[in-house]
Amino acid sequence: MQLLEAVRQGEVSTVEALDRVASLPYRDLGFAKVDVHRELRQGAPEAVLAEGKTPEQVAGIVRAMLQAGAGSVLVTRAGDDTRRAVLADASDAREDDRARAVWVARGTPVPRGLVVMVSGGTSDGPVVHESRIRAELLGTTVVVHEDVGVAGLHRLTPVLPDLERADCVVVVAGMDAALASVIGGIVSTPVIGVPTGVGYGSARGGETALHSMLCSCAAGLAVVGIDDGLGAGTIAARIARGRE
Amino acid sequence: MQLLEAVRQGEVSTVEALDRVASLPYRDLGFAKVDVHRELRQGAPEAVLAEGKTPEQVAGIVRAMLQAGAGSVLVTRAGDDTRRAVLADASDAREDDRARAVWVARGTPVPRGLVVMVSGGTSDGPVVHESRIRAELLGTTVVVHEDVGVAGLHRLTPVLPDLERADCVVVVAGMDAALASVIGGIVSTPVIGVPTGVGYGSARGGETALHSMLCSCAAGLAVVGIDDGLGAGTIAARIARGRE
Amino acid sequence: MQLLEAVRQGEVSTVEALDRVASLPYRDLGFAKVDVHRELRQGAPEAVLAEGKTPEQVAGIVRAMLQAGAGSVLVTRAGDDTRRAVLADASDAREDDRARAVWVARGTPVPRGLVVMVSGGTSDGPVVHESRIRAELLGTTVVVHEDVGVAGLHRLTPVLPDLERADCVVVVAGMDAALASVIGGIVSTPVIGVPTGVGYGSARGGETALHSMLCSCAAGLAVVGIDDGLGAGTIAARIARGRE
Amino acid sequence: MQLLEAVRQGEVSTVEALDRVASLPYRDLGFAKVDVHRELRQGAPEAVLAEGKTPEQVAGIVRAMLQAGAGSVLVTRAGDDTRRAVLADASDAREDDRARAVWVARGTPVPRGLVVMVSGGTSDGPVVHESRIRAELLGTTVVVHEDVGVAGLHRLTPVLPDLERADCVVVVAGMDAALASVIGGIVSTPVIGVPTGVGYGSARGGETALHSMLCSCAAGLAVVGIDDGLGAGTIAARIARGRE
Amino acid sequence: MQLLEAVRQGEVSTVEALDRVASLPYRDLGFAKVDVHRELRQGAPEAVLAEGKTPEQVAGIVRAMLQAGAGSVLVTRAGDDTRRAVLADASDAREDDRARAVWVARGTPVPRGLVVMVSGGTSDGPVVHESRIRAELLGTTVVVHEDVGVAGLHRLTPVLPDLERADCVVVVAGMDAALASVIGGIVSTPVIGVPTGVGYGSARGGETALHSMLCSCAAGLAVVGIDDGLGAGTIAARIARGRE
Amino acid sequence: MQLLEAVRQGEVSTVEALDRVASLPYRDLGFAKVDVHRELRQGAPEAVLAEGKTPEQVAGIVRAMLQAGAGSVLVTRAGDDTRRAVLADASDAREDDRARAVWVARGTPVPRGLVVMVSGGTSDGPVVHESRIRAELLGTTVVVHEDVGVAGLHRLTPVLPDLERADCVVVVAGMDAALASVIGGIVSTPVIGVPTGVGYGSARGGETALHSMLCSCAAGLAVVGIDDGLGAGTIAARIARGRE
Amino acid sequence: MQLLEAVRQGEVSTVEALDRVASLPYRDLGFAKVDVHRELRQGAPEAVLAEGKTPEQVAGIVRAMLQAGAGSVLVTRAGDDTRRAVLADASDAREDDRARAVWVARGTPVPRGLVVMVSGGTSDGPVVHESRIRAELLGTTVVVHEDVGVAGLHRLTPVLPDLERADCVVVVAGMDAALASVIGGIVSTPVIGVPTGVGYGSARGGETALHSMLCSCAAGLAVVGIDDGLGAGTIAARIARGRE
Amino acid sequence: MQLLEAVRQGEVSTVEALDRVASLPYRDLGFAKVDVHRELRQGAPEAVLAEGKTPEQVAGIVRAMLQAGAGSVLVTRAGDDTRRAVLADASDAREDDRARAVWVARGTPVPRGLVVMVSGGTSDGPVVHESRIRAELLGTTVVVHEDVGVAGLHRLTPVLPDLERADCVVVVAGMDAALASVIGGIVSTPVIGVPTGVGYGSARGGETALHSMLCSCAAGLAVVGIDDGLGAGTIAARIARGRE
Repeated sequence: MQLLEAVRQGEVSTVEALDRVASLPYRDLGFAKVDVHRELRQGAPEAVLAEGKTPEQVAGIVRAMLQAGAGSVLVTRAGDDTRRAVLADASDAREDDRARAVWVARGTPVPRGLVVMVSGGTSDGPVVHESRIRAELLGTTVVVHEDVGVAGLHRLTPVLPDLERADCVVVVAGMDAALASVIGGIVSTPVIGVPTGVGYGSARGGETALHSMLCSCAAGLAVVGIDDGLGAGTIAARIARGRE
Repeated sequence: MQLLEAVRQGEVSTVEALDRVASLPYRDLGFAKVDVHRELRQGAPEAVLAEGKTPEQVAGIVRAMLQAGAGSVLVTRAGDDTRRAVLADASDAREDDRARAVWVARGTPVPRGLVVMVSGGTSDGPVVHESRIRAELLGTTVVVHEDVGVAGLHRLTPVLPDLERADCVVVVAGMDAALASVIGGIVSTPVIGVPTGVGYGSARGGETALHSMLCSCAAGLAVVGIDDGLGAGTIAARIARGRE
Repeated sequence: MQLLEAVRQGEVSTVEALDRVASLPYRDLGFAKVDVHRELRQGAPEAVLAEGKTPEQVAGIVRAMLQAGAGSVLVTRAGDDTRRAVLADASDAREDDRARAVWVARGTPVPRGLVVMVSGGTSDGPVVHESRIRAELLGTTVVVHEDVGVAGLHRLTPVLPDLERADCVVVVAGMDAALASVIGGIVSTPVIGVPTGVGYGSARGGETALHSMLCSCAAGLAVVGIDDGLGAGTIAARIARGRE
Repeated sequence: MQLLEAVRQGEVSTVEALDRVASLPYRDLGFAKVDVHRELRQGAPEAVLAEGKTPEQVAGIVRAMLQAGAGSVLVTRAGDDTRRAVLADASDAREDDRARAVWVARGTPVPRGLVVMVSGGTSDGPVVHESRIRAELLGTTVVVHEDVGVAGLHRLTPVLPDLERADCVVVVAGMDAALASVIGGIVSTPVIGVPTGVGYGSARGGETALHSMLCSCAAGLAVVGIDDGLGAGTIAARIARGRE
Repeated sequence: MQLLEAVRQGEVSTVEALDRVASLPYRDLGFAKVDVHRELRQGAPEAVLAEGKTPEQVAGIVRAMLQAGAGSVLVTRAGDDTRRAVLADASDAREDDRARAVWVARGTPVPRGLVVMVSGGTSDGPVVHESRIRAELLGTTVVVHEDVGVAGLHRLTPVLPDLERADCVVVVAGMDAALASVIGGIVSTPVIGVPTGVGYGSARGGETALHSMLCSCAAGLAVVGIDDGLGAGTIAARIARGRE
Repeated sequence: MQLLEAVRQGEVSTVEALDRVASLPYRDLGFAKVDVHRELRQGAPEAVLAEGKTPEQVAGIVRAMLQAGAGSVLVTRAGDDTRRAVLADASDAREDDRARAVWVARGTPVPRGLVVMVSGGTSDGPVVHESRIRAELLGTTVVVHEDVGVAGLHRLTPVLPDLERADCVVVVAGMDAALASVIGGIVSTPVIGVPTGVGYGSARGGETALHSMLCSCAAGLAVVGIDDGLGAGTIAARIARGRE
Repeated sequence: MQLLEAVRQGEVSTVEALDRVASLPYRDLGFAKVDVHRELRQGAPEAVLAEGKTPEQVAGIVRAMLQAGAGSVLVTRAGDDTRRAVLADASDAREDDRARAVWVARGTPVPRGLVVMVSGGTSDGPVVHESRIRAELLGTTVVVHEDVGVAGLHRLTPVLPDLERADCVVVVAGMDAALASVIGGIVSTPVIGVPTGVGYGSARGGETALHSMLCSCAAGLAVVGIDDGLGAGTIAARIARGRE
Repeated sequence: MQLLEAVRQGEVSTVEALDRVASLPYRDLGFAKVDVHRELRQGAPEAVLAEGKTPEQVAGIVRAMLQAGAGSVLVTRAGDDTRRAVLADASDAREDDRARAVWVARGTPVPRGLVVMVSGGTSDGPVVHESRIRAELLGTTVVVHEDVGVAGLHRLTPVLPDLERADCVVVVAGMDAALASVIGGIVSTPVIGVPTGVGYGSARGGETALHSMLCSCAAGLAVVGIDDGLGAGTIAARIARGRE
């Protein structure tokens, strides 16, 4: 937004600004247009959703982004083949098989702020860690507490000090997602809820958790899509880092 | 179930038992068949749902049940006209306009057991009180705590002693119904959840509360239909009174 | 709830009580927090949902619970691998492959009360038996009648004596779940309905059975989530055993 | 279908048959095309759905159909204004305010066959009677039994002889519609189910009854749309009268 | 219903009738109660839904029914293993792999009446043939016309003579199921619609076809559940055979 | 798109083009930003949806658009009050109460092309006429045929010549919307379907018609939102007029 | 529609026209009726949906259509086996594995008009290319731009000149499908939206994209079913070619 | 969270902290428990949802909160009667009838940070202003831009400078909510989306907007419930003010 800042201060006219945006480079791989300057424009590189793409397509996109100088590239929902394809390409790539993620980090921002992530159960792990990796790559410190349910509220006690220090709290929960309401009723920090598809029958693939969170009576809670760890990590990092 | 008891003990043959059931009296009012012996058969008089019936039809049904010797008759979801029609007919009828209920109690069982009813918010009142009236008419003691949310868990503290004494707990809540999970995680008594249509938007007329309760990770929780105070009062009274 | 009893009788202050709860021990396995005292607190050990966990994670949780002195541990929705992992760990573990359950019972309560479980069809078997195992581990006697439909009401006749003796009846049924209404119209005991995902097309994975049960005109019926044998077994056992 | 019979027997060529159909008369009222020969073509006059039409439009359509020699005209879901408009126009018109129907019958077929209609509760009345009127106008005898629930199966006993005599049974029920399964399990006659929007909350405006009926395990049951008394009356009369 | 006939004519008392029904034999296989007299009671043997049962369970049920003297047994939605298990058991068993059905017919009624089955497309075949086999076993003649769409109405022409002769028409169609409305607008015979799960995206697994059929403006149409060829075959045969 | 044409021909640089777009005038009424140049930009003035706006707000917006030189302004879903407010303001305004529309036409394009609109029933009228008015204002000739159902296919015959002449056909239908498939199977012109909320019960407020149309097997059919006469009129006019 | 043209000009009577349509040839393969003259009647050969058909059935249908002189045959949603079966049969067949399509083109119309297809992301590719192949076979020129999102509007810039030249624009997008609104707000050409099932969680298998497109505030947009590339290609080609 | 801070620094033991929370005062009005210290605990007073409460109940709650020293009290979704009841009670109360809100502000925090609120259309006004009032009462500066659609992207231009200055952006939009994706693709600040129930038909009362926002490909976007201006105002203010 330096560009817009310049517009606001009269250093650059609107016409010139739009022109610069319109002329921003991207690479056309035929099957994909790689957005090599989003990092400059929005402070975060585009993440790559592996689902629906072949391993070769994903590896090609990653390569193009790195060649264009991306500080980091994160691939989400990546199966074994895809992760292997990326790892074969970049010796400094890292993966997390539980989170189904692979990434290359060549230049990430100096961390600022603290995000605390709390999950309802062990099975929410993949979403939690996708979210954590994203937030860390965006330059923030993340503390994770897994398997804090509401059936045993005392398990919440040791989390309290971290909740108190947080600039943003992420609650990852499936089923009835009651944990979001309970935590939302305690903290005065912004809370981001991530409903997960954990559970069967009436859990409805995460719909119940989603709607529960959306009509929680706890103030200060906003929600991302079902299983969208990436989205939660992005907004949490932005909140924790503050205006740039 | 005295009849079945008799069958079990060989005093009455299955044939005779079925015959007795088949010959059980009911009164045919043309538009309705009044089940004047359910009280004997199941230990609870049939309740009358006023919705979809004219005030005259409801008053006629009540009259027939009382003439047949019903110990009590409860009319639910009754508008002003219907309540007035019943009150005009029976001088000992009583009404509760918030619960939209009118009833006549001429002989209710000696109370046994304790049901504790807890609601999430003030707006759940009509359902809470429909449930309370039903349970009291079936012969149990009811204690009510309204407007206990989870956004302020400390409001739960004064309810704890009653929860501890309860033979059955009824939780009435709309929105995300997180209260059901929180209470279900504390008590060791059977809990009956009643989702309510309170709330707007993502509350979806009670669907969110219903599904939240159904996939609560709290053990020992079962649920009745949306806004079904009558159903909750019935099963709660049966649980609290124990086998008869 | 002995703790709360003590609070009520003035032997323990609220502050002390909350402190004790807050200091209740649990074991942190990293991916899971094992609630080793729920058995004391609520009279029932936490059950372990195997779905979404690796066999190793499940076996680790079971081990931790047993080391902490759990009277019994029940693992539900466990595939072959998970059951084998638990059986390898504990020589006294038992499994039921139809119910997809594995459990270790080292100290269960002296049975009290009678739960009668009735299913609509053969295919409801897995849910019935998950429910039965849970209720037995919680200390109650269970009698099972499978494949009682409503298409042939006469098949209900031999079940009647058991229904009459029951402290709680569990009805497990898919499709239109009409069996729940029929039984709910006969007995005067609390009835817990378990909708199952049996059936195709308009059965909608159990949604039809669920909503049918929820708006049954039979009084005294409450419902757990689709296929939630565990939940039904828990509340049924609590009802049958009565207040403790 | 006399036309098609003629085609089959070689008396009329396909070309001529299609020509005759194409040249069948209808009256164009501008806002409506009145199908004045459906009675000849299909053995049943077109019924008029009043909803979404003005009283004047409805009266105009009825007038046109009668002028064209219709044996009977039935208007359904007609409010007070519409019924009055039709009654003002035709001195031999009749109405049923509960069924929200108005009709003129100048020449109905000699009755053939017996349809037995059974409803779950008093509130299903409007749908029952719309269905009854339709079937009677199509030329069949109808016997109605209202308010037969499944909560009291003994209320079904006096209906059995009529069920046994029926050529077709119509079951009208809301809520969980368990009555359809129970009756479907008894009779060997075709059964037509009509789900109704009676009930609240989990009844979902008739959706629950509809899906319950659709996945009933009772053989020999087919279903019409929610509250579609007209449709049920039509097919029931056709079944009861047999091939013509 | 001979029994009820006897009741009606005073030859048998209600008590005796209920007694006879209650004492009707069934065989208890542990996992299933085999209803060996439904054929006598309702004129149609119980069909066996293979889904959710092991091949051994299905074969056992078939064996028990045949031993009890069933005229025919039909197993639906049977995979290869199940069909093989039944074929191994009964040398006179027959199968239809497209319909996923296997059956034994040792004594079927003399055919009466004509059912015409019409499908929208080739992919509706499995449902059509399940329906056809059922209707034939119940004793009726069936004529099948597959792949008649509405995109080419002229393909309907050669079906017209059969439609004219039919005692009952079955329309099997997925997607928008417009064929049901088109045929319902032509014939004066009862029409049974079977929505199928054919199609993708907006076909919604058959929901669209189901609701289309339910709100068809064609009179004389009733519907069974999605893909429920069995149900359609049953009611169609009953309609075509007339009252027995 | 003259601007883009100029860009393509190198007469105007991209920068300049974006600048011109960015500097396009609109009037800010505080509660609304009036888009006074859409007509130039897209060849069609913005229509005003009256729902959710006060009569004064609507009249203000219309006035601003006319002052800015709009060729025509169309207000849809306008109640009596709103229509009166606009009529009071502009002496040359016209209204259609059935279509709930009010408009001012001061300079509409010379008509080009022919749109044929066909409706399933009388009750679809409001949507048909909203669509017709919109298409006429955009400069095309419209022919309307109302109340053509599929229950009587012969009613379609007199429409055929117009269908054959059409540049675009609009089918407006509720319920099962089978008319769209039937017409889509006949014509070779683009067909736009408009599902309507006409009907009750299983019509589901237009959802059934919408999904029926979306999975019609008729090629060459695309659909707008439920009751969206405006949208259908817009795209139909664009198709009929051809590229400009 | 030459036939109808002739009717209109009085050269052919309606009777004769209907007769000709009724006598149009089709080949009956038993499992399928092959519509060998749709190409003449509607200007487009019937496409074959491979799903739900065996490779042999598909190959048989293709063969029959080609023998009947079809100009082209397109098979969609064809797996490897089906494509191989068709390729083995016709040496001039071609396939596109990403689009899961196989086709034979022996005589396609001289191209007329321009369709521009724009997709939101790489994963929408299969739908884009099914659509493209269909439109090309129908005789129009197609230009494709893939992976144009709205997260980076500047990626839209190079597409603008093609959008300006288009006779019809097809937008293929999943998730929130915002691209359809953005493009619909720019162009003055008819726009056809194709929602895709791309995405997870709240994308709901394409439902979100579908409804987003349906209530887009962009005028001039109509929509086909989820993933229905075939339908979009058909109507787009018809629009681009203009009236024939 | 000063309390927890103290715990963390060892000044207060966990026991004492829990004790203090448990002893936090609230006032019990019978029908409501007024949470008079949430302001201290969470930095924001409890807001009062007027729906489902009588004007007297609302006024009573407001009075109790003010007597307990609340800095501000906000009542949302308040009808005329309720607003009048509150205004009668407190001379310094203010109302906004479009937002259906009434509030008393006696001591609000010194504003910190900037929230920019952008709406899609005029009809979103009530939600926008509820959100604005809430955020202002919590102590932040709010700038509002209404009626910025995506159909005319140029209307976004004058908003850009404010977007650039914002600490948090709130996007309020109904229909397809494409505005959220467009803005989310431009800014690098956290974005909170509020789906609204504006629109008809396929807008589905806000469900479409909700799911569109949830699966927006724009990073950094989180969502509150449908029409939940209050929730958006709360979290936006917290984000804008930063950690306290």
